[in-house]
Amino acid sequence: MQITSKNNEKIKALIRLRDNKEREEKKAFLIEGLHMLEMALRSQKVLEVYATSSIDNLPSDIPFYLVSEEVMKKISHLKSPQGVVAKCQIDETHFINTDKILYLDHISDPGNLGTILRTALAFNYFNIILSLDCVSIYNEKVLMATQGALFSLNIIHKDYQYLNKLKEENYQIIATSLHDAKNLEEVNIPLKSVIVLGNEGQGVRKEILSIANQKVFIPIQNIDSLNVGVACGIILYYFNK
Amino acid sequence: MQITSKNNEKIKALIRLRDNKEREEKKAFLIEGLHMLEMALRSQKVLEVYATSSIDNLPSDIPFYLVSEEVMKKISHLKSPQGVVAKCQIDETHFINTDKILYLDHISDPGNLGTILRTALAFNYFNIILSLDCVSIYNEKVLMATQGALFSLNIIHKDYQYLNKLKEENYQIIATSLHDAKNLEEVNIPLKSVIVLGNEGQGVRKEILSIANQKVFIPIQNIDSLNVGVACGIILYYFNK
Repeated sequence: MQITSKNNEKIKALIRLRDNKEREEKKAFLIEGLHMLEMALRSQKVLEVYATSSIDNLPSDIPFYLVSEEVMKKISHLKSPQGVVAKCQIDETHFINTDKILYLDHISDPGNLGTILRTALAFNYFNIILSLDCVSIYNEKVLMATQGALFSLNIIHKDYQYLNKLKEENYQIIATSLHDAKNLEEVNIPLKSVIVLGNEGQGVRKEILSIANQKVFIPIQNIDSLNVGVACGIILYYFNK
Repeated sequence: MQITSKNNEKIKALIRLRDNKEREEKKAFLIEGLHMLEMALRSQKVLEVYATSSIDNLPSDIPFYLVSEEVMKKISHLKSPQGVVAKCQIDETHFINTDKILYLDHISDPGNLGTILRTALAFNYFNIILSLDCVSIYNEKVLMATQGALFSLNIIHKDYQYLNKLKEENYQIIATSLHDAKNLEEVNIPLKSVIVLGNEGQGVRKEILSIANQKVFIPIQNIDSLNVGVACGIILYYFNK
């Protein structure tokens, strides 16, 4: 099917998905670009594809809409649209409690969250828990920064109190902290662990620090702290070795 | 002195500094927020301060302008201005060739460049060389992401051919590469080295790879690459140990 009008009802409905509430209600979100589409297709979450030209190897059961450049400009959130936007399904992930879990406590910057998810996947952390006050994983900037990692991860949202439950299941809670913490190199790596990274300004909240089995810091000089995405990289690299 | 008009000539000149060319011509750039101001004051690069209320411990020889909220909104690049903007001096850094140098090859994302500079400082990399096609270090987003690190670093701009000169001075060139490279853990850490990180999309340019003494990769799974800021963190952490 071909769409050349910006006022087409499907197009209007698509644009509304840029809004967080609308995404939650419709259980759908948008992705952009061929690379993201490829990653999404592998996870079988693609509902509809909109593009300015034909796309190779698109499964025939996925509705495809050819749109004009003008319509694409309207759909895309990018200054230079990449010519492909797809509507994908939000589904409650089947969360598998493996030995390695990453808990993200109030990560508020979209670029940071996306980078953390990409990094987690790179170091075999497939199971991620987000606190309820993290930025939305379907935010455009988060999706761009993930480089498609989202489609390969199991992600759930849980209040910090959920960590108590995991502790009962013999997970060690290992939280980053600038005070009263062990050097990363001295941390005991347990069989089952949850690594906790905290908010950009405040760090990990004190309620979590008080139940943590181990607190860890990365030795640095000359400046107060590292960016949380960088800290994530160093810690997961170390734990994945 | 107090300024309440957005059309004041000093305010107009200040706003023009948001432009790259203007910054280079006037050898000045803007910073925002108290934390950045504190870092800048230590490096004695502050030329003028503009704020919506008085500032404690500001040296008396630095011109201070009290501005209205409305004027601050005009000066600030933030949605929620922090109430302080300062004009700082760009000066050609006195570059000290120590044993550890970081070369950044065509880093184009402002957030990445800022994060890399913050990370470099944290791991005692004080000497940074930027290729001529990197994003400007005075870009507002770069400055925000540096968290003030800029004022403690020695930064110069040099074409990649400068690496040949450093090689003659017995520096080993160690470049990141996804192909034909050594695992980070197997790299020999020489006495004098230049670590090279590359562009977000293309990586380190082939002209540099061809002269590198060692090529290095960080072992990852499930995804093509790490964010360059994250890669920087892992490598500098490892080299700084």
